[in-house]
Amino acid sequence: LRDPKLTRSVWFTDRNENIALSIRHKGERLFSEKSQFQKVEVYETFAYGKMLTIDTMVMCTEKDEYAYHEMIAHVPLHLIPSASTVLVIGGGDGGTVRELLRHPGVSHVTMVEIDETVVRASREHLPQLSESLKDSRLNLIIDDGIRFVGNAPSAAYDLVILDSSDPVGPAKGLFTPEFFRNVHRILAPNGALVAQSESPRFNQGAFVALNKCLNEIFSSVHCYLAFIPTYPTGMWSFTLAGKTPLDPTSGLDETVVNSFSEANNLNYYNADVHKAAFALPTFVKKMLN
Amino acid sequence: LRDPKLTRSVWFTDRNENIALSIRHKGERLFSEKSQFQKVEVYETFAYGKMLTIDTMVMCTEKDEYAYHEMIAHVPLHLIPSASTVLVIGGGDGGTVRELLRHPGVSHVTMVEIDETVVRASREHLPQLSESLKDSRLNLIIDDGIRFVGNAPSAAYDLVILDSSDPVGPAKGLFTPEFFRNVHRILAPNGALVAQSESPRFNQGAFVALNKCLNEIFSSVHCYLAFIPTYPTGMWSFTLAGKTPLDPTSGLDETVVNSFSEANNLNYYNADVHKAAFALPTFVKKMLN
Repeated sequence: LRDPKLTRSVWFTDRNENIALSIRHKGERLFSEKSQFQKVEVYETFAYGKMLTIDTMVMCTEKDEYAYHEMIAHVPLHLIPSASTVLVIGGGDGGTVRELLRHPGVSHVTMVEIDETVVRASREHLPQLSESLKDSRLNLIIDDGIRFVGNAPSAAYDLVILDSSDPVGPAKGLFTPEFFRNVHRILAPNGALVAQSESPRFNQGAFVALNKCLNEIFSSVHCYLAFIPTYPTGMWSFTLAGKTPLDPTSGLDETVVNSFSEANNLNYYNADVHKAAFALPTFVKKMLN
Repeated sequence: LRDPKLTRSVWFTDRNENIALSIRHKGERLFSEKSQFQKVEVYETFAYGKMLTIDTMVMCTEKDEYAYHEMIAHVPLHLIPSASTVLVIGGGDGGTVRELLRHPGVSHVTMVEIDETVVRASREHLPQLSESLKDSRLNLIIDDGIRFVGNAPSAAYDLVILDSSDPVGPAKGLFTPEFFRNVHRILAPNGALVAQSESPRFNQGAFVALNKCLNEIFSSVHCYLAFIPTYPTGMWSFTLAGKTPLDPTSGLDETVVNSFSEANNLNYYNADVHKAAFALPTFVKKMLN
């Protein structure tokens, strides 16, 4: 005797033990597969379009993925406009590659995704993200990013992007000094790493540990923030680590940035946002001191 | 035969029809009263300390209230350092008044809160917020803010702060042209209004309508943003409206701002954050065009 309207209100919840973010969806799972690494699912939500989840954590949704993908790609590429070879670890949905390939200077992207299931789910259900995976400039490799980076030649990449899920499950080994020493080694002399570095509020431990680890290995480390409504607390961080000192804002050519952003119809990133993202609230600064 | 551990996991949820933010609490309500206006409750949460809610919307929590209250008070007061008389509409918890009174130039604050229940709940359970309500520079009036503003003398205030709940229930009439024309009238010639202006993502309609309304009445209107983890989507906006043109960033004395912020042990606001808050992501800019 349940109200049929109530049974139709179904929610996906991304939570830790004390806070949770829930997103209403339309009932059926468009994709659901347990790979050897993790559970990969796609839901159709009411507010955010299709949503990709891994082990009950939101990876991205059609309607807000641009914020994350624009910020992880365009911030470093406008700081290192000479970058031509890029390595992406993770990022199986294709959103990061899509943004990287908007830059004509990027001639070659290698993406190493551990789980082909993520790529397949995205190809089947998230074409706005995965279409970039067809680009001839992309070399898509299904492999363990840790092993790949360990075996890669030195100084081979201008930019490395760590577009991983949270540091649990298969992504755990990505947040280690050994991994980041290898990333440092495979970067060109003026190269840089950008890592998604969790929420300073929701995953404070991982956020602080990653920053500290990068500070021991790289010569300049700068954290930046973006509003991601479908990630817990809505505040997400990225960390930019340069092999040589890198000023994250003062060298920026704002005219170039804004022309690029307009020409590509970006939804989040612009020159003001680039500079503003590096301004940290005092409680975040204190965490990193 | 329910698992007793499960029955102890109790959650407060702030939701619209499609997304929800849930915060785990310890079970009992510390305060629960239905006033003639709204339902006022206080919970003890695990992640955020004590939490004040009105009609199942989070108003503030002990552990993150500083972000909202610092941003609503210090941004305008550092832009109008000569401000001495301030009117607060709403704000019954006391957090905004606490931040305002950190400025030695502020000699008189009038706060008009419609619901004494909010004040009482805060006095009983949120001393870190409500202690400011004892200050001799404060005149606390329990009354309808709309009526108060309608009857107030012209040019009486240097700053008006609209620290209301969402524009439903008793706060609805606060988001009307008539109300804001009266606010404009009671401001001194160089005065300004700051209004909490909802989430551009969660309450897009109210956010856009308020900005448009203020643009028709005030001579300069600037939106700014802050990360508020316990509000839905985590992205919250404030709107600064000047009776005369007001540049929100270029006149800022950064040394003064940072000394002030350090001396007062602020947790969120600093000079970089002040400037960064006015940098709007492109999708927000487009909403306001």
